[in-house]
Amino acid sequence: MADGDDDVPLILTWDDANSGLMEEEENGVGNYDIVNNVIIPTSGTAEPRPQNSLRQSWEMNYQEAAIYLQEGENNDKFFTHPRSAHALSAYLFAHNHLFYMMELLTAVLLMLLSLAEAPAVPFLRLDVYVHATLELLALAMVAFELCMKLRWLGFHTFIRHKRTMVKTSVLFLQFIEAIVVLVRQTSHLRITRALRPIFLVDCRYCGAVRRNLRQIFQSLPPFIDILLLLLFFMVIFAILGFCLFSSNTADPYFNTLENSIVSLFVLLTTANFPDVMMPAYSKNRWSCIFFIVYLSIELYFIMNLLLAVVFDTFNGVEKMKFKSLLLHKRSAIEHAFQLLVSRQRPDGVSLKQFDGLMRFYRPRMAARDRFLTFKALNRSGATMLSLPDFYKFYEVIGLKWKARRSGEYWFDELPRTAFLIFKGINLLVKSKAFQYAMYLVVAINGIWILVETNMLNDGVSWTRVVPWSYIVFLTIYGVEVLLKITGLGPMTYFSLGWNLFDFSVTVFAFLGLIALAFDMEPFYFIVVLRPLQLLRLFKIKQRYRNVLDTMFELFPRMASLGLTLIIFYYSFAIVGMEFFAGVVYPNCCNTSTVADAYRQINVTVGNRTVLEEGYYYLNNFNNILSSFVTLFELTVVNNWYITMEGITSQTAHLSRLYFMTFYIVTMVVMTIIVAFILDAFVFRMNYSRKNREPLGDPEEEKGIVFETEVSQTEALQTLDLYRHTLRITNLSSLQSMYAALERSGQPSLIFVGRRSRTKSDLSMKMYEEEIQEWYEEFSRTNLQPDETFHQSLNSPEVSTTDSIN
Amino acid sequence: MADGDDDVPLILTWDDANSGLMEEEENGVGNYDIVNNVIIPTSGTAEPRPQNSLRQSWEMNYQEAAIYLQEGENNDKFFTHPRSAHALSAYLFAHNHLFYMMELLTAVLLMLLSLAEAPAVPFLRLDVYVHATLELLALAMVAFELCMKLRWLGFHTFIRHKRTMVKTSVLFLQFIEAIVVLVRQTSHLRITRALRPIFLVDCRYCGAVRRNLRQIFQSLPPFIDILLLLLFFMVIFAILGFCLFSSNTADPYFNTLENSIVSLFVLLTTANFPDVMMPAYSKNRWSCIFFIVYLSIELYFIMNLLLAVVFDTFNGVEKMKFKSLLLHKRSAIEHAFQLLVSRQRPDGVSLKQFDGLMRFYRPRMAARDRFLTFKALNRSGATMLSLPDFYKFYEVIGLKWKARRSGEYWFDELPRTAFLIFKGINLLVKSKAFQYAMYLVVAINGIWILVETNMLNDGVSWTRVVPWSYIVFLTIYGVEVLLKITGLGPMTYFSLGWNLFDFSVTVFAFLGLIALAFDMEPFYFIVVLRPLQLLRLFKIKQRYRNVLDTMFELFPRMASLGLTLIIFYYSFAIVGMEFFAGVVYPNCCNTSTVADAYRQINVTVGNRTVLEEGYYYLNNFNNILSSFVTLFELTVVNNWYITMEGITSQTAHLSRLYFMTFYIVTMVVMTIIVAFILDAFVFRMNYSRKNREPLGDPEEEKGIVFETEVSQTEALQTLDLYRHTLRITNLSSLQSMYAALERSGQPSLIFVGRRSRTKSDLSMKMYEEEIQEWYEEFSRTNLQPDETFHQSLNSPEVSTTDSIN
Repeated sequence: MADGDDDVPLILTWDDANSGLMEEEENGVGNYDIVNNVIIPTSGTAEPRPQNSLRQSWEMNYQEAAIYLQEGENNDKFFTHPRSAHALSAYLFAHNHLFYMMELLTAVLLMLLSLAEAPAVPFLRLDVYVHATLELLALAMVAFELCMKLRWLGFHTFIRHKRTMVKTSVLFLQFIEAIVVLVRQTSHLRITRALRPIFLVDCRYCGAVRRNLRQIFQSLPPFIDILLLLLFFMVIFAILGFCLFSSNTADPYFNTLENSIVSLFVLLTTANFPDVMMPAYSKNRWSCIFFIVYLSIELYFIMNLLLAVVFDTFNGVEKMKFKSLLLHKRSAIEHAFQLLVSRQRPDGVSLKQFDGLMRFYRPRMAARDRFLTFKALNRSGATMLSLPDFYKFYEVIGLKWKARRSGEYWFDELPRTAFLIFKGINLLVKSKAFQYAMYLVVAINGIWILVETNMLNDGVSWTRVVPWSYIVFLTIYGVEVLLKITGLGPMTYFSLGWNLFDFSVTVFAFLGLIALAFDMEPFYFIVVLRPLQLLRLFKIKQRYRNVLDTMFELFPRMASLGLTLIIFYYSFAIVGMEFFAGVVYPNCCNTSTVADAYRQINVTVGNRTVLEEGYYYLNNFNNILSSFVTLFELTVVNNWYITMEGITSQTAHLSRLYFMTFYIVTMVVMTIIVAFILDAFVFRMNYSRKNREPLGDPEEEKGIVFETEVSQTEALQTLDLYRHTLRITNLSSLQSMYAALERSGQPSLIFVGRRSRTKSDLSMKMYEEEIQEWYEEFSRTNLQPDETFHQSLNSPEVSTTDSIN
Repeated sequence: MADGDDDVPLILTWDDANSGLMEEEENGVGNYDIVNNVIIPTSGTAEPRPQNSLRQSWEMNYQEAAIYLQEGENNDKFFTHPRSAHALSAYLFAHNHLFYMMELLTAVLLMLLSLAEAPAVPFLRLDVYVHATLELLALAMVAFELCMKLRWLGFHTFIRHKRTMVKTSVLFLQFIEAIVVLVRQTSHLRITRALRPIFLVDCRYCGAVRRNLRQIFQSLPPFIDILLLLLFFMVIFAILGFCLFSSNTADPYFNTLENSIVSLFVLLTTANFPDVMMPAYSKNRWSCIFFIVYLSIELYFIMNLLLAVVFDTFNGVEKMKFKSLLLHKRSAIEHAFQLLVSRQRPDGVSLKQFDGLMRFYRPRMAARDRFLTFKALNRSGATMLSLPDFYKFYEVIGLKWKARRSGEYWFDELPRTAFLIFKGINLLVKSKAFQYAMYLVVAINGIWILVETNMLNDGVSWTRVVPWSYIVFLTIYGVEVLLKITGLGPMTYFSLGWNLFDFSVTVFAFLGLIALAFDMEPFYFIVVLRPLQLLRLFKIKQRYRNVLDTMFELFPRMASLGLTLIIFYYSFAIVGMEFFAGVVYPNCCNTSTVADAYRQINVTVGNRTVLEEGYYYLNNFNNILSSFVTLFELTVVNNWYITMEGITSQTAHLSRLYFMTFYIVTMVVMTIIVAFILDAFVFRMNYSRKNREPLGDPEEEKGIVFETEVSQTEALQTLDLYRHTLRITNLSSLQSMYAALERSGQPSLIFVGRRSRTKSDLSMKMYEEEIQEWYEEFSRTNLQPDETFHQSLNSPEVSTTDSIN
């Protein structure tokens, strides 16, 4: 048999697990070298061996290879690789979705606790002993997770891992504090709660947030440099401003040096312009020059320089990140490859071994897909996968396999009359005329909505009345959706994002109509969403399709950036709540310069009494939700100084530091976001320019496609192999493949594997030439003693030749 | 003789000017072909010819070659090239600094007239007949300039030149209007004055502004696309907002659809945030989601997308501009080369011809420098310049030549004692210790100023008192400057920008002190500038040096962008003045929502009467200066809606269109400015990364340097050539060079030519590889019938071979 049952792995892993083999070795049956805890067979003999322990050692190898590949995929460093069977069980326990979910839920629970703690959201308030007990529970969970990690990493690696150490000390601190709260039955000043997001950041599922944070920290040094320049000019201008304007008693902005600095800091955000200029301007018209020069230098030059510097750093960091990820993956593949080859054939992986690997790497993958993935990797057509073949592992692993449809349309096999009808519909919905007719309808609908809304008197409960036009347009959209689904077939129809959008908007509109008919109050918002139909107009132009497609592509990354922002918000919200909760209220700040914004008085106009509201007392830190809204307002920057001055007038001057720090932090994050959008967009444009490829054209943008052909005999052989040699029982997918082959009557079927294109695929194509250089450099500098613990594996050629000869 | 006196130009230009030669030809002396008005000699014979007319025809060629090179330098298209001796005189008249200056002054005068016209700046008001007469005069000047242009371009080219045609029609309109004003003796509604900047833009000296405008227009199409997306979302959200919030009677922002749209437009600029949210937020806390989603999509996503799109377009445009400029220059050089070669040696330009060219191209250049430039071009060492040599023309033309100093220090030739003293000072000022000591002094000075300013009571006339610390520090700086000048020598010292900065700040501080001592009121601002000394601290770090150097490099371009902005301001200011002059005044807008900002009332606080001022009535369009300040405030965007609403309440709803249009226009210009800064900075960083060159290191950044060696015999020969063959009388520069050679006693001297590095030099290095491709492509597609009128010149090989064989 080709895949000899008695093949011996080239490398045997996890010494204590292979005790059976070890004993044999001691008995002189085989010759093994032990290099760094790895057993390497040194003799070339292929004597028969007890099947059981050989099988077991293969299974071990499959598992470790799968772990390597997972580490490569997740960008886990190899020094956290489990080193013993002992560590392995902890590793396996800590690496599955159940555990990850638990980790995430614990962290989220801890963060959500602040909804219920001391300055709580009114309807969520909990007693102290309840939330303290909950907190202790959650912390205990975190402690348990850390214990598992300790067990898997070993003490030495554990204390070397910085993030884990920080987490441990925060955990320790929070434990003590939670107990103190429970004992005293009252919350003390707990700023340390601001550290809670650390548990969230450490979650497996929050890898994107970690990457964002790392990127922010990497962009920080140049950012701080320019920030200092900015602040330096600010101080210089503050001194100048103080000299020039302090003699004007009507000018409250420059009467002391501190006020002068604060005024110019706020002016940096433009929030107090032109008010800050007005007293000086009314005295001497030429004083505007001071402000114009200040704003030109600070706002229009240095602030943009800040963006330029961050953008530049960002650019470089993105590329380096891609490079290191790529090389890490390559290294993982090399590690896995060494574990999968046998002593007899050390330069190829057979289907049997590949299947073994995949059973650990993707336990839920069907046997057919494992086989097809092997075929997709195996470009050369040989029976074994060579290392170069295997390098493509990560490119094919995400493919979804499907047999290629033989016919052109989904209705090919229907009777003649039906076929002609559907064919007609198909031609209709594909015609330009139909498309433009629909655009016209949407445009008319848009104008209609505008006119209709404009004619409504205000105050009328708009949502109660359903105008007839609404029903007419909705019917047209409904008919369009039905026509398209029948004409194109559901599969083709739903494979396009835009169609999905059409479909869901239309269905939602129908649901809203039904909700209205049955008078279901809470669903009325659906009706309000009707103008979203108009978004379809933006399919007309190529550029909009590009922009919106880029928007969708950016969405996951944007979401993770948003989450990162929320983590910063959370920490600031906690600190804000600890110091400023309950500080502002209506009419609180009558002695400050922003009294108007907090005033709430009854004014008599004519013979009516009207409540004149300043509203700004609503921007407070009274609970975490209010804090978030307040912080968002501070992020938008406009009028932020009103909130700052209001709170400062009720507390101390130092409070301003909190607001200024927050401004600078959000400025960093926002600059990163801008740099990210810029980078992503410019990257896309450059990519499409380089590859002369129409960007985002829905017909062409089908992602990554692999094709592989399977013949009947091959299918039969494989089925045989799986059934008898591998003794796998769940073969329904392979059997149905064989059945499909038989049914089709053709000698072979083509299977198509698809997946959507990722940023990494684009980068691969963009940096094509450089990647080759990186690889060469990588294979030269590969043998570094510290990088991995399986040292000898790093340059496979050396170790294999050594051990065989 | 090598440069035979009887060489005949390969091509004879300007037929009517060469009547002498033409007659000869008619007399059968030579054989010429007339191709496109250019006389091409067809016979290879070199019969002696009347020296005079030959000389004259060479001069003609020199002049035309110089014109070609000027056209290449200024990026003038070749179809405006003068085609006859007739046109030539007009061309020469219209192409000198006197004419340019007149053009500029006329345009500036026209623009400045609006200071004195109807809503005039109070102290500059002129009577109607005065300013109308002035205007007529200026317009007559413009008309005269246009006539010269017509004469030079010819009627056909003139009406094909779009910019000139626009200028002509605007001129015509303004003429009529000015006459009407003069007749009626009163100004009517003259919005056309907003077109006056066209005259400025058309000036030769405003080429940079024209380029900026072109770039803005090129970035416009993608910009408008995204803008539409932005406005579309705005309208959708306006409809949603109207539906959601119009039932709240306390909410003035969403009570009608128009208000809803205006509110969201203003919210786009964040100027009314969070106020716009507050009424809804106080009713239902969840309504903040509407605003957060709106701002996230519009402000944080689409606005950044706008920047990304403009940045991307900008990037491409910059490169294309560089490419077309480069190829235009190359084409100009090829044209000039053909005019300079002789029939006898058609592939080389001799010194004699080069010198002739340079006498027209740079009339003020000394004979020595012309000779050295020739040497610098002539890399191969042959007696003639080949075309590849000549291609480098624009690179060497700006060089400033100097004999290389033989010694290391400026004080090398002083007596021993003096030498040792200066040597000591030199070592001192170059030492790290001295530098850091100075940094320390500056830092202490900075802290001192801060502390001192902080301790001053407000209201004290700070500038009257000179603290002793100021004198101490100033003395230290003075001593430092003196030491450096003596130690390094004035030439070395002042060649560095930073030293110039140090020097001028110190000298200004001394002047301020003197001004104070003599009680000269208007100079007190100099004293106030003292904190600028602190700027020196930023020399410490490499990154700051880079940033500040980039800042200086960007300055000319930034200034031209600023000027572009001012041109937009001017047009908007005129329109604003025509419609809104005198509209706002204290207490004008009591019926509007922004009444507070315009209020001016006396309030009794305790027993004092205090004037409570809204100040916003100062933001008006009452004269052009106020308009500029108001427009700047609108550019900064914060609180701009107060100005808008104030004026709208006094005029009509349509006025909002003016403000919104202005916002969008400044948004375009500002986005371009941001994109420009981003592009310039990222380019610099990439450049330094690509060339592994420390950026902006003052020791290395010496610009472009060429060196050329001149021996005694060579100098003598050249002197001889100039004196006898070329019969040039003004040879003092060559004679002094020869004298210096003799004095030095060495067989040869090395001359160094330097110029500062321009963006074009950086681009040359950045796009090195691509440039070669462009050149190849260029020489392939060169022969396009329309591009130039000297068709035959475009591919020199063909025409020369044709005409000779």
